[in-house]
Amino acid sequence: MTTVAAYAAPAAKAPLERTTIERRPVGEFDVLIDIKFAGICHSDIHQAREGWGEAIFPMVPGHEIAGVVSEIGPGVTKFKAGDRVGVGCMVDSCRACDNCRAGREQYCTGSGMVGTYNAVGKDGKPTYGGYAQAIVVDENYVVRIPDSLPLDVAAPLLCAGITLYSPLKRFGAGPGKNVAVVGLGGLGHMGVKIAHALGAEVTVLSQSLRKKDDGLKLGADHYYATGDPATFEKLAGSFDLIVSTVSAPLDFGAYLSLLKTEGTLANVGAPEEPISLNLFALIGGGKSLAGSMIGGIAETQEMLDFCAEHGIGAEIELIRADQINEAYERVVASDVRYRFVIDTATI
Amino acid sequence: MTTVAAYAAPAAKAPLERTTIERRPVGEFDVLIDIKFAGICHSDIHQAREGWGEAIFPMVPGHEIAGVVSEIGPGVTKFKAGDRVGVGCMVDSCRACDNCRAGREQYCTGSGMVGTYNAVGKDGKPTYGGYAQAIVVDENYVVRIPDSLPLDVAAPLLCAGITLYSPLKRFGAGPGKNVAVVGLGGLGHMGVKIAHALGAEVTVLSQSLRKKDDGLKLGADHYYATGDPATFEKLAGSFDLIVSTVSAPLDFGAYLSLLKTEGTLANVGAPEEPISLNLFALIGGGKSLAGSMIGGIAETQEMLDFCAEHGIGAEIELIRADQINEAYERVVASDVRYRFVIDTATI
Repeated sequence: MTTVAAYAAPAAKAPLERTTIERRPVGEFDVLIDIKFAGICHSDIHQAREGWGEAIFPMVPGHEIAGVVSEIGPGVTKFKAGDRVGVGCMVDSCRACDNCRAGREQYCTGSGMVGTYNAVGKDGKPTYGGYAQAIVVDENYVVRIPDSLPLDVAAPLLCAGITLYSPLKRFGAGPGKNVAVVGLGGLGHMGVKIAHALGAEVTVLSQSLRKKDDGLKLGADHYYATGDPATFEKLAGSFDLIVSTVSAPLDFGAYLSLLKTEGTLANVGAPEEPISLNLFALIGGGKSLAGSMIGGIAETQEMLDFCAEHGIGAEIELIRADQINEAYERVVASDVRYRFVIDTATI
Repeated sequence: MTTVAAYAAPAAKAPLERTTIERRPVGEFDVLIDIKFAGICHSDIHQAREGWGEAIFPMVPGHEIAGVVSEIGPGVTKFKAGDRVGVGCMVDSCRACDNCRAGREQYCTGSGMVGTYNAVGKDGKPTYGGYAQAIVVDENYVVRIPDSLPLDVAAPLLCAGITLYSPLKRFGAGPGKNVAVVGLGGLGHMGVKIAHALGAEVTVLSQSLRKKDDGLKLGADHYYATGDPATFEKLAGSFDLIVSTVSAPLDFGAYLSLLKTEGTLANVGAPEEPISLNLFALIGGGKSLAGSMIGGIAETQEMLDFCAEHGIGAEIELIRADQINEAYERVVASDVRYRFVIDTATI
């Protein structure tokens, strides 16, 4: 067992505070990672505040982890001490179901994927995430961060990056395709960078034009305010693919009208309440409304390699651990450009 | 101009009665078709009763037309007198937009597709459908009915057949795939036959087991009652593709739970009211909710050739023209196995 410093929420809705946690001994196939940076994802806040249902406390959030391997178990073949690595939203899965065998561990239908935190590991103990100085993870759930990617801007790729990369690839974003990204936050700004690097023509659909300059700098070709009804008239039938990153309830009929025939509106942010949808909005143009959740381990590695090749990291605000609670308030207020990343040396 | 006998609704909700209509002179690229059989589609009733909004009267419904060419215009190259042909839901479109040029005339974004009836043709006159003894149609919107397909059972393929064939093909129904068809009516029974012929393992999901024997005879491998909650437990995560043919509001979350990861629920029947949908039902397994509307002209020809190759026609009840109003009542009551077809010689 290794005792490590961490930041934890002692109870639902309580501020996070410094504490120590125990990490399991390094097992045969385990990697001990010296965490350098951890991104703050909006879902950290949802879970720490029990917005998504009952949670496990104390909770050490964090599933955008970048660090360096400091020790390996005797059976480990993929990594060695000194390797630059990342851990995302899961640290295990059943490894036996069709999805696990197909590299879609995030949709594990056996025991279900084991979340990096707020979950119970195969040892029956709660998992603790990345707001900590070290973590022990089975090598099969660890990915390599290419040398050219700085670890701080790589951390958010482990959730925000893969969450956008997966649907963009699956639904064909690339040269000759018109792709819209709804919302320019932590997820959306990764979507703009990745869709642009994939060769698509990229449009940001944001509530206002407040972040327009940023959007264009990040790689968008066009930027429209969805608060302006003229946007929906002007862009009717424009997009092959729309990826929505927002959790606020959208007028889905209006967004579907922006798709070309047989286009797809993929949702990675989801409203907590059910949406209302007139199916004629899908039938009239053979359109699809799809969902997508992070990506598999191999796909996450592919995404990191792609981002390294294209020089893509997240836009971040680096913070100290004692700024986490303040950062949470700013995330809730959408006041971050575009991801808070904790320097875990400050824990 | 040719005067032909027809059955028409003189006004919304009025019973259909015998009348005569004028067909336009056979133009350079036109085909005059001696109609032999016309299927009764539920949408005929929706439109004749203005269930889908204001309509054009008198209305001669019918967009499942099978007949024989009796005359051609001087520019016609695709057909000659005596050819066995069909006409489906459209008789024209803009021919210039991306969709028309890609063979997706049903999604024409120029002037829009011109419906076979209850629409206005390019000559500014109302179109009249297949409950008539003859029709004049541009050769580009006419398809060939292979010799091995009897005209009476071929007629419903022009709408019901293509409506199912298109999403089944697009979303990959075939060997090794588990496909469910929701609803065993005029559309659903074609879905079972076509999915089976495509090589998929086919399951019917129907409210009750009342038509189970029929379903299995039509080619289904399995048959479940959706009125039994155990069905949804037993079949969770089973299907690559579900095609819903019903217009009644479904519990879409429940049906989406029956899909495998990255599966698609395609709707060809649509509730008139908006549906309620929790997006987590899509996100959790990377699933899609799609719509589909008939098919293009080339795809309709492909479907007819496929059906001929596999000996697929609709299951029909052949009626006289004076039975149309009674047939409408039986369609509304779901009392038809599985399509009424009018013998137009009786008009």
